[in-house]
Amino acid sequence: MLAELKESVWKANLDLARSGLVVLTFGNVSGIDRRRGIVAIKPSGVPYDGMKAEDIVLVDLEGGVVEGWLSPSSDTPTHVEIYKAFPEVGGVAHAHSTYATMFAQARREIPCFGTTHADQFHGPVPLTRILVEAEVAEAYELNTGRIIVERFAGLDPLELPAVLVAGHGPFTWGRTPAEALETALVLEQTAHLAFGAMALDPRLPPLDACIQEKHFRRKHGPGAYYGQKKEDGHD
Amino acid sequence: MLAELKESVWKANLDLARSGLVVLTFGNVSGIDRRRGIVAIKPSGVPYDGMKAEDIVLVDLEGGVVEGWLSPSSDTPTHVEIYKAFPEVGGVAHAHSTYATMFAQARREIPCFGTTHADQFHGPVPLTRILVEAEVAEAYELNTGRIIVERFAGLDPLELPAVLVAGHGPFTWGRTPAEALETALVLEQTAHLAFGAMALDPRLPPLDACIQEKHFRRKHGPGAYYGQKKEDGHD
Amino acid sequence: MLAELKESVWKANLDLARSGLVVLTFGNVSGIDRRRGIVAIKPSGVPYDGMKAEDIVLVDLEGGVVEGWLSPSSDTPTHVEIYKAFPEVGGVAHAHSTYATMFAQARREIPCFGTTHADQFHGPVPLTRILVEAEVAEAYELNTGRIIVERFAGLDPLELPAVLVAGHGPFTWGRTPAEALETALVLEQTAHLAFGAMALDPRLPPLDACIQEKHFRRKHGPGAYYGQKKEDGHD
Amino acid sequence: MLAELKESVWKANLDLARSGLVVLTFGNVSGIDRRRGIVAIKPSGVPYDGMKAEDIVLVDLEGGVVEGWLSPSSDTPTHVEIYKAFPEVGGVAHAHSTYATMFAQARREIPCFGTTHADQFHGPVPLTRILVEAEVAEAYELNTGRIIVERFAGLDPLELPAVLVAGHGPFTWGRTPAEALETALVLEQTAHLAFGAMALDPRLPPLDACIQEKHFRRKHGPGAYYGQKKEDGHD
Repeated sequence: MLAELKESVWKANLDLARSGLVVLTFGNVSGIDRRRGIVAIKPSGVPYDGMKAEDIVLVDLEGGVVEGWLSPSSDTPTHVEIYKAFPEVGGVAHAHSTYATMFAQARREIPCFGTTHADQFHGPVPLTRILVEAEVAEAYELNTGRIIVERFAGLDPLELPAVLVAGHGPFTWGRTPAEALETALVLEQTAHLAFGAMALDPRLPPLDACIQEKHFRRKHGPGAYYGQKKEDGHD
Repeated sequence: MLAELKESVWKANLDLARSGLVVLTFGNVSGIDRRRGIVAIKPSGVPYDGMKAEDIVLVDLEGGVVEGWLSPSSDTPTHVEIYKAFPEVGGVAHAHSTYATMFAQARREIPCFGTTHADQFHGPVPLTRILVEAEVAEAYELNTGRIIVERFAGLDPLELPAVLVAGHGPFTWGRTPAEALETALVLEQTAHLAFGAMALDPRLPPLDACIQEKHFRRKHGPGAYYGQKKEDGHD
Repeated sequence: MLAELKESVWKANLDLARSGLVVLTFGNVSGIDRRRGIVAIKPSGVPYDGMKAEDIVLVDLEGGVVEGWLSPSSDTPTHVEIYKAFPEVGGVAHAHSTYATMFAQARREIPCFGTTHADQFHGPVPLTRILVEAEVAEAYELNTGRIIVERFAGLDPLELPAVLVAGHGPFTWGRTPAEALETALVLEQTAHLAFGAMALDPRLPPLDACIQEKHFRRKHGPGAYYGQKKEDGHD
Repeated sequence: MLAELKESVWKANLDLARSGLVVLTFGNVSGIDRRRGIVAIKPSGVPYDGMKAEDIVLVDLEGGVVEGWLSPSSDTPTHVEIYKAFPEVGGVAHAHSTYATMFAQARREIPCFGTTHADQFHGPVPLTRILVEAEVAEAYELNTGRIIVERFAGLDPLELPAVLVAGHGPFTWGRTPAEALETALVLEQTAHLAFGAMALDPRLPPLDACIQEKHFRRKHGPGAYYGQKKEDGHD
């Protein structure tokens, strides 16, 4: 069932492992079939080496396993919550990548200091609040999804395809699993650049708004002119 | 004798060399056969390239060589002391990995700032005291083991499978040599994340206790639900 | 048309991808045929993997496409402006390389703190001013080229073959596309060294002028004695 | 002539290139035949790729070329000065490796903060003074060698096999070219560890003298017991 989706999720997980963004098994990518309402996700705690496309687990939008002999990632309820709230999202990635996680641990947004950031993210990368004790005790991973969605009130998730969960790390997304992983790579480089720019000048103001706007619109939306494919209004 | 143990120790030492955690020959992994009371350990100062499983040295719990034509690692008495004090430990790794060693040199514990840390370590990574002159002059490596054990009074070594020896570097352990090496990898990433989070906010408080507890218990102990294998109450 | 130029530009783009200076497709190298006034440049947003020499786009000095089935890099007007103002330049490279971009984002020149810098750059690496709103709204990439040229009033672009565009990142150049890429590599290492030296001493003065001069003149100009080929007065 | 020496110098230069310590051609290793008083060194500005053992240049102790069709490294007079002053040295390496060069640029010694340092260096890694204008104008590379030797008055070059040339970078040495390169690798890691430890605690005192002494003597001199080969009193 859904062999193509499983294949793309499996491939994105292998690419995540090769990307250098993860240590051991600390990361996962998922994808969704919107028509059937089924999410494909990495099995929990399984090494990337030797993982097969058939090992990818299928779950429904309540998080129940629909197909697969392995347990799905323990972060599954977080992924599902993102899919339910953001209908344009087709893939979600989670990795404790070094610099993005430093910002999440320090509980700081990533300000937009340059065009690398503005090309990808339409504003600072948002930070969730910290979960309170009752939210941790019960349905922790679901509540992690909920505070992500809560933080995006009034924000467009495709214009800001990343979040830092305070004290934890980043989640990124896109229209496909591959795009979610690409965003994770750009986020990590963006975080590294911001980390260094702040070391050079701890009071550095953000990039001028007009340049931020220009760079984002060069690549996204109806007036985009970066890249080759502009048919669908993205990229 | 103990060909399987030697093989696993040899393999873990090669994996250590490939991991990027060590420069030249500055690291070693050992394993123990608890029934016979015999420790298998890397020979001293031997390059990883070309090392064979047969080169692994066997020593008893007094540190005397039982089998092998090469001298055992000069850190052998430290490893043996850890095995004697921590009966559940089956493998020990030592590497001067970059960020963990920075903390050891700066004589600071690694605080728990995020879930990457909490997933693996149940509390801050402990730091030993510094050895006094008499402890250095005589039985230095044995005394290094003793201050590690001294520091763990009241702590569970399987819930905190790492220590920073002040002015020196980390030792990590686990139920097997492979697990000891995995812990070394996670420790290094944890130390890197803490280093960066402290640069972003020098007064950063630790992660909320309830989230620390939640993440550790997701992966360890009777209520663990991370990963696929929960038979033994770990993982 | 201009198969050799396309080949050298294609190769320099692949070498850029392999160099570790770029994430995804965020970089480009171009070259010029001075006799015909034609610039060869990477197509926009195309992955390096699978790119062929025939995919390289040819444009004239007004930036119009002369040959090629793909859109040229969105940074083409910036490259063209550099070629028009600096007649000795034969290749231009652009990469959001980590440390050079940190300086560009923090809007700081890279001071000359050591001989690695002085070997390549005859003075601090210059920083442009920030574009004003009208320059961003209309002909943004052309204006980026113009503020680079404006900043080089009174400077010799072959003695200072790099610039930091404020809030954006570096452009580097040389007599060939390969040389432009080499300069990008040296710039990144130079920026990393300066970043660290400033962390060790935030008030570090620049290297003594006589040593700066000596090192630059060892490698460049009529008295150069570094390397094997001195025929043309460079290197 | 001296095919074996050339081979070992060639191999050490290739290993230097693979080590990640150098960018482009910015590094060199040499070796000496003490009986004949002939130094073998990398040719100047030649890429490591494609370099052959026959390309290694032979010079005498006045720096004159004895054999070879290429110009020797421009740093040759510095190497020769080291060989003349330190009769036990058999190989010299020079690389603008990242962290060691940061300290050289910031004009700071590398303090001994831990056992990684103490294992290799018997004290802080020394820093030369800066050259004065007359020393730069005339015989610059020779004078670089002279301020290295000047700095080692009262120091044992085999117990402190590295120096930081202020504003420039490190030179390392050993009994063979391979050992000189090994020292360069350890120096770089040592510098990285010190850089991070100083970031964690800017007022960090050096490691206790008795531990410094213990670690150095574990590996060097008549009482050494690290490693397998103790015949000659080293290692």
